[in-house]
Amino acid sequence: MMDCKKALAENGGDMDASIEWLRKKGLAGADKKAGRLAAEGVVASYIHPGSRLGVLLEVNCETDFVAASDKFNALVQSIAMQVAASPTVAYVSAEDIPAEVYAREKEIEMGREDLKDKPDAIRAKIAEGRVAKLAQEMALLPQPYLMDGSKTVEQAVKEAVAAIGEKISVRRFVKFQLGEGIEKKVSNLAAEVAAATGKA
Amino acid sequence: MMDCKKALAENGGDMDASIEWLRKKGLAGADKKAGRLAAEGVVASYIHPGSRLGVLLEVNCETDFVAASDKFNALVQSIAMQVAASPTVAYVSAEDIPAEVYAREKEIEMGREDLKDKPDAIRAKIAEGRVAKLAQEMALLPQPYLMDGSKTVEQAVKEAVAAIGEKISVRRFVKFQLGEGIEKKVSNLAAEVAAATGKA
Repeated sequence: MMDCKKALAENGGDMDASIEWLRKKGLAGADKKAGRLAAEGVVASYIHPGSRLGVLLEVNCETDFVAASDKFNALVQSIAMQVAASPTVAYVSAEDIPAEVYAREKEIEMGREDLKDKPDAIRAKIAEGRVAKLAQEMALLPQPYLMDGSKTVEQAVKEAVAAIGEKISVRRFVKFQLGEGIEKKVSNLAAEVAAATGKA
Repeated sequence: MMDCKKALAENGGDMDASIEWLRKKGLAGADKKAGRLAAEGVVASYIHPGSRLGVLLEVNCETDFVAASDKFNALVQSIAMQVAASPTVAYVSAEDIPAEVYAREKEIEMGREDLKDKPDAIRAKIAEGRVAKLAQEMALLPQPYLMDGSKTVEQAVKEAVAAIGEKISVRRFVKFQLGEGIEKKVSNLAAEVAAATGKA
């Protein structure tokens, strides 16, 4: 952290110049970034217009310099929007999907009508293939990047790592859809409205 | 929902007037709101300046009229800020705390040094008292309301229900603190920085 202060001092408080200076010094631009600690970063949100859908996201980097930079924050915002835009995405990577979810989905696929006459081994193989495909849809990183469909989110993050010169990791997110899981009992509601009208 | 459209039509599209009209009709002002369905509302966020702490929150009401009203959104924003401001709050109400959490906390309290010489029954009683106190601290609704310490969050919500005339329920929230759970290996980091400097 002393290096960051020194970088700022050496570059007259200019953040971009400081980052560049750190990269040149090889501190922020070291090749092996995967093993490094990314405990800085930002917590950001995206609330879709209408306020019926929201995302909270944490993306980590290595220094508070980068955390405050426009380039980093633009990446974070576009990832938050991407999470909001995708109805299937629920985990950062396929490795984050819990074993129970895999097992449950496999069981569902094994029970499908179209596989019912297949031999067990083939049925299992097809079911596993379908679950693997589903896992790709549930994971953020393998998705086509919303801002540029020619690359995946993972590739966009890697490009940002190369451009910024720090390890960057999408750590976690949650998505709230208004009312999801609340059962809309239409018939009861209608009866209740009628009752309330009667009372008025 | 037809009533909402009718209310808007009858009141020239004025939202506040429409809500008032619905309340007078007794639809939105019925006494027994607890059993009613609150599946509208908003998903809102609060990002604390500095972007190291963020909250995503869902608060439900009964109609999209109220969901779009200033009064409702002011309540939602103040609750989101309150969740962010409290380091202990993790659940909406004490009833939402999972049984495992209660059991774990009780076990911790049972093992405390200051209770070790007490008879088992007394030890359990004291531990349960402490866990009950902890549960109050972990729950949002019993907290003193940040905007007015003379009432709890629960009372503030009830007052909003009375003022707005709809069932309102704080449904769920999550709080992300930047880097929480990421182990900062200070010694390793120092060694790594030294290594990187050596390479440069």
